[in-house]
Amino acid sequence: MRIDLNCDLGEGYGPWQMGDDAAMMRIITTANIACGFHAGDPETMRRTIERAHDAGVAIGAHPGYPDLAGFGRRARPGVTEREIENFVAYQVGAMAAMAELGAHRLTHVKTHGALGNACADEDALAMAVARGIRAVDARLAFMVMPGTATQRAADRAGLRPIHEVYADRIYAETFNLAPRSLPGTVLTDPEAVLKRVVRMVGDGEIETLGGRRLKTEIQSICVHGDTPGAVAMAQAIRSGLEALGWTLAATVET
Amino acid sequence: MRIDLNCDLGEGYGPWQMGDDAAMMRIITTANIACGFHAGDPETMRRTIERAHDAGVAIGAHPGYPDLAGFGRRARPGVTEREIENFVAYQVGAMAAMAELGAHRLTHVKTHGALGNACADEDALAMAVARGIRAVDARLAFMVMPGTATQRAADRAGLRPIHEVYADRIYAETFNLAPRSLPGTVLTDPEAVLKRVVRMVGDGEIETLGGRRLKTEIQSICVHGDTPGAVAMAQAIRSGLEALGWTLAATVET
Amino acid sequence: MRIDLNCDLGEGYGPWQMGDDAAMMRIITTANIACGFHAGDPETMRRTIERAHDAGVAIGAHPGYPDLAGFGRRARPGVTEREIENFVAYQVGAMAAMAELGAHRLTHVKTHGALGNACADEDALAMAVARGIRAVDARLAFMVMPGTATQRAADRAGLRPIHEVYADRIYAETFNLAPRSLPGTVLTDPEAVLKRVVRMVGDGEIETLGGRRLKTEIQSICVHGDTPGAVAMAQAIRSGLEALGWTLAATVET
Amino acid sequence: MRIDLNCDLGEGYGPWQMGDDAAMMRIITTANIACGFHAGDPETMRRTIERAHDAGVAIGAHPGYPDLAGFGRRARPGVTEREIENFVAYQVGAMAAMAELGAHRLTHVKTHGALGNACADEDALAMAVARGIRAVDARLAFMVMPGTATQRAADRAGLRPIHEVYADRIYAETFNLAPRSLPGTVLTDPEAVLKRVVRMVGDGEIETLGGRRLKTEIQSICVHGDTPGAVAMAQAIRSGLEALGWTLAATVET
Repeated sequence: MRIDLNCDLGEGYGPWQMGDDAAMMRIITTANIACGFHAGDPETMRRTIERAHDAGVAIGAHPGYPDLAGFGRRARPGVTEREIENFVAYQVGAMAAMAELGAHRLTHVKTHGALGNACADEDALAMAVARGIRAVDARLAFMVMPGTATQRAADRAGLRPIHEVYADRIYAETFNLAPRSLPGTVLTDPEAVLKRVVRMVGDGEIETLGGRRLKTEIQSICVHGDTPGAVAMAQAIRSGLEALGWTLAATVET
Repeated sequence: MRIDLNCDLGEGYGPWQMGDDAAMMRIITTANIACGFHAGDPETMRRTIERAHDAGVAIGAHPGYPDLAGFGRRARPGVTEREIENFVAYQVGAMAAMAELGAHRLTHVKTHGALGNACADEDALAMAVARGIRAVDARLAFMVMPGTATQRAADRAGLRPIHEVYADRIYAETFNLAPRSLPGTVLTDPEAVLKRVVRMVGDGEIETLGGRRLKTEIQSICVHGDTPGAVAMAQAIRSGLEALGWTLAATVET
Repeated sequence: MRIDLNCDLGEGYGPWQMGDDAAMMRIITTANIACGFHAGDPETMRRTIERAHDAGVAIGAHPGYPDLAGFGRRARPGVTEREIENFVAYQVGAMAAMAELGAHRLTHVKTHGALGNACADEDALAMAVARGIRAVDARLAFMVMPGTATQRAADRAGLRPIHEVYADRIYAETFNLAPRSLPGTVLTDPEAVLKRVVRMVGDGEIETLGGRRLKTEIQSICVHGDTPGAVAMAQAIRSGLEALGWTLAATVET
Repeated sequence: MRIDLNCDLGEGYGPWQMGDDAAMMRIITTANIACGFHAGDPETMRRTIERAHDAGVAIGAHPGYPDLAGFGRRARPGVTEREIENFVAYQVGAMAAMAELGAHRLTHVKTHGALGNACADEDALAMAVARGIRAVDARLAFMVMPGTATQRAADRAGLRPIHEVYADRIYAETFNLAPRSLPGTVLTDPEAVLKRVVRMVGDGEIETLGGRRLKTEIQSICVHGDTPGAVAMAQAIRSGLEALGWTLAATVET
């Protein structure tokens, strides 16, 4: 009856902010922090790390493709394993150093956007992520989607996996997320989302749009910070889980 | 009778190259590699690391200001200690991870361009560099200019210093380099440069334009890779030193 | 009894927004739109142009230094006239083309941030701006601060000037703005701001911190869009002016 | 017996150069100049324009995707017509302004890399380029590949076409270039290239790999500036054509 609530934070750049990090920081237990490629710059990273430290929130690196203008959401057909190793190692290495400056401990890595999508679907690319992580520290956990290539890569590479589910998204048959463009795949009713989350983490089961089921341990729930109503949704999930007796806590001691 | 020959390499970006890295790699014993802020991108960094590994050349991180268009040579008035900590930690952390991918060992850090200049002249900024380095690994050496704030910072921060001299530049009274804009401060005659270098490393002494002298150990000679005639000049220095019985070698085992 | 209300808009980048452009667009009569160097990207520019067109708001180009991370607010010591000609011509030319795509007419140019500051203080740099504007279209107006180098440059270069005053800022003795860092130089009380604005535009007079006065025509009032309370402040100024019988309108037919 | 020789120039960025622009400028009659998205910055653009002016070389804008690190060669699946309008209008508008600063006249537009490829293959995207050009100046010529969507777009949009052929590349059945990755599709023997060029421009005919033929006027020959041996190849083509009685000249008076 213990579960982690993770969210992507520190996704501003220079003068710009994305979402309400301060509010989310009071609700979640783990923050995945942008590393400068799709968002984030050294000062934004450090400030986010320091706030997470003060709030007792665990931190991970959240590397994406080098694409500020597209926020790392543009697919990159033909990306190679070597490129992914480079992108991940560079960003995780930078974040590990910034965590030191912020006197906080880096616990894990979670891939962002189009990079994350590519890696959930292709074993070779997910293994490249794992090698990029290991180049920095083999003790870092790899936050993965159960049933996808990222989970298999964590296992094969000997990285501690953190299994996460998405609170407000419907799953495709690959156990990756169904594309947002598909109508009905993003849930917006807090009550429905909470009900769905409780079922997933309670039963340890993920169900796809087509009805495939996967039994798996679930250690973390991903909530979004950059959409309208994000803070209210996250708070509703947290309060609902606590009312049902769940303890919200990061998967590792920070 | 043992001396290191260092050069800034990997200063291309994407499709662009700077200087003839392949030729320089056969002459020098230590490469300072750009980390993505003033030059360099993950693939350029990795390729340079791999070539250095194959050539038996020691590698260091060469962080600069975030300024591709200005090649990190534009002054940044009002830069804070915190900004410098951020810039250095981010880049050195990224480079340490890339070195792992390239199966090579990162030995040191040397600051670039306008960042280097600022730190040679201000103790507080040089200390910020030292803290940025320590955030990654306190065993990294700090390549410094004897008599300047960088040397003092290495000593105070407990970082192993590598004392370097510039083969072809005249020194200001601060023991920082005299600005290139001052006529006669950049030497171009290989014989004169060699003679000057031999005197400096042989006597363990640096002399300024105005005649100030500093007795100091000198472990490394910096040669340039990005100017016309750079390769010939570096080769002349190497050959000349070897003819005089010096052994060219990095300051640490790689 | 006719006055223009101008505001800097379109200062987002990629996924990021700055301020509440939609709300400001309903209050102001002229928008100065970022051109991609300190903020803005082609789609953000076009969307802002289209919204201005629909709202009947006049548009100008708002060029700044190439510095996304610093939002064009970092000084650039040693910037040359040629660099400024380049920066201004490039951005104004790009904006003029985007205005065509958005079926709207570009009416003027106003410089941003540190570029604007440098040009208000140095005649040679302000003249470089004027040449950059003329390279695109000599019929464009140059929005200037009366009493500064920008006003003199508009006059000498034969560009139609738009004289603007700042609603909420105190003036230095040069008739440039007193630096924000000086306590008390940014006004935040809407009533005080309105009173000050009415006096300036009514009397046609600007007064400095030290009591210097400049009699001048004033055609436009600048309000800010990116600070907390910006929309309420702008609305208070507009409503107050209208209550006093002023007509809010751009200086040119769009 | 009059033909234009065009080449992409000004493809450096900040401190970096691409190819030997000075040498190419003495051989060619038309330069397509990068506009800042895949390469080029305002000063590089201006310097290239000034050199072209002094050499009597006609200039065009050479817009690409916003992708410095990938040199505009990465495909961008899902790019929309609106995005292409934006990219082209922004860059051509900027270049037109820089041409004014350089006291030279912009004559045409030629798309770069992956943007060019996409537009050669899809009519809707090529029409978007044409609209982007017209947003700046409907008198600009559109340099196109005969038989492809770019040629059709120039005709439909009422833009003066400049038909170009590639000296050293083999054509696919679409009359677009066969991909470089296909063995044998890039010719490197100057004699073979010259023979091929003479046949194409002499007969007014393009032949594909599979033997399809297209009768068409040809006004320009494209040579490359950024490959080893580029200058020698371009000189061989120029000399060979002149020896056969051809006059090398831009398609328009500059």
